[in-house]
Amino acid sequence: MLDSLERTHAVESSLKWAANGHLPCVVWFTGLSGAGKTTLANALDQALFKMGAKSTVLDGDILRRDLTADLGFSDVDRIRNAQRVGQVASLMAEAGLISLVALVSPLEAARLAARQAVPAGLFLEVYVSTTLAVCEQRDVKGLYKQARKGGLAGFTGVDAPYEPPFDPDLRLDTGQMSVADCVNALLMLLATRGALPKAAATGLHVPVSAFTA
Amino acid sequence: MLDSLERTHAVESSLKWAANGHLPCVVWFTGLSGAGKTTLANALDQALFKMGAKSTVLDGDILRRDLTADLGFSDVDRIRNAQRVGQVASLMAEAGLISLVALVSPLEAARLAARQAVPAGLFLEVYVSTTLAVCEQRDVKGLYKQARKGGLAGFTGVDAPYEPPFDPDLRLDTGQMSVADCVNALLMLLATRGALPKAAATGLHVPVSAFTA
Repeated sequence: MLDSLERTHAVESSLKWAANGHLPCVVWFTGLSGAGKTTLANALDQALFKMGAKSTVLDGDILRRDLTADLGFSDVDRIRNAQRVGQVASLMAEAGLISLVALVSPLEAARLAARQAVPAGLFLEVYVSTTLAVCEQRDVKGLYKQARKGGLAGFTGVDAPYEPPFDPDLRLDTGQMSVADCVNALLMLLATRGALPKAAATGLHVPVSAFTA
Repeated sequence: MLDSLERTHAVESSLKWAANGHLPCVVWFTGLSGAGKTTLANALDQALFKMGAKSTVLDGDILRRDLTADLGFSDVDRIRNAQRVGQVASLMAEAGLISLVALVSPLEAARLAARQAVPAGLFLEVYVSTTLAVCEQRDVKGLYKQARKGGLAGFTGVDAPYEPPFDPDLRLDTGQMSVADCVNALLMLLATRGALPKAAATGLHVPVSAFTA
């Protein structure tokens, strides 16, 4: 879908991006269930909204109710799932939106499929690296308990593998960092990609050169 | 997906809509191949952009390259295709965008599936009613020629049915109306739904009461 930005639209995407005052991008949160992906996506959405940026959250759990309801949890279906969500995020980017995707996406191949669905340079991989121990202790949805009892076959981290990203754009452990600190790190990342309104980006008051993931 | 607007997001959709200065909606262009769906969607996108509204085009032909590449042209797949595009349009609406969908969607059941994927009241059906004779004469993509030779099984209007909408929100025949007139009619329709920036809507200088589809 690399050519998606070259499509002949009545309005060039770049004009829409300019009108928004920032570049679009896809922030892809990957990590175990309970790692804090949705929490960070929503908190970042809030921060971006306050800055006047155009963003939206694509939550894997919610999308499985409709957009990807036909897909299961086999490796192939996990890849298809990530790919389809990536394709939607790409359409969002074309329209000018920053999309914040919260999806376990435990397989490198699935994240690659998502990345390939998005125009080059617009895909940012954020590894929410909260440990299994912390995630399982939280167990907000009670899924780990269920999985340990054998009631959820193929649950990531319990009886299905999580393949950590090789080289994420950012690594955030919500067991060690506050949500506010995570959001600040995310905003800095977006600022380096031109994905914040200029006034907001300069308002961060942190030299970009000081930023390391 | 009626509950999609009630999802607990960090930022309520209604706040994003307010920031954009207009309501979102889904304008669903249905009609034969060559009827002018994409042309009208692009022209409307252009007009909306000039007014400062946030919109995007979802073109069925382009989406079949990736988002719906797994689907064919059987009745079931046509329904799934419309449904999936409707789901994406719904996500776009949640984020505040007006999406302009150009999709043959010849089956009433497929258009119903799309409508049901979108929050109530945000789905506008536009029947691009250009006659088969005109579409076939244009034959921009050479598809009618191919279909008449038997090279395209199940081509809508040739050997597959087109079920006209019972009660579209608007009916536009590009064989009889100019693109500019069609766009004006579309803008009036959007104005009645709150989907135009206020300044632009009043700038139309046409009493809403005078407008009939």
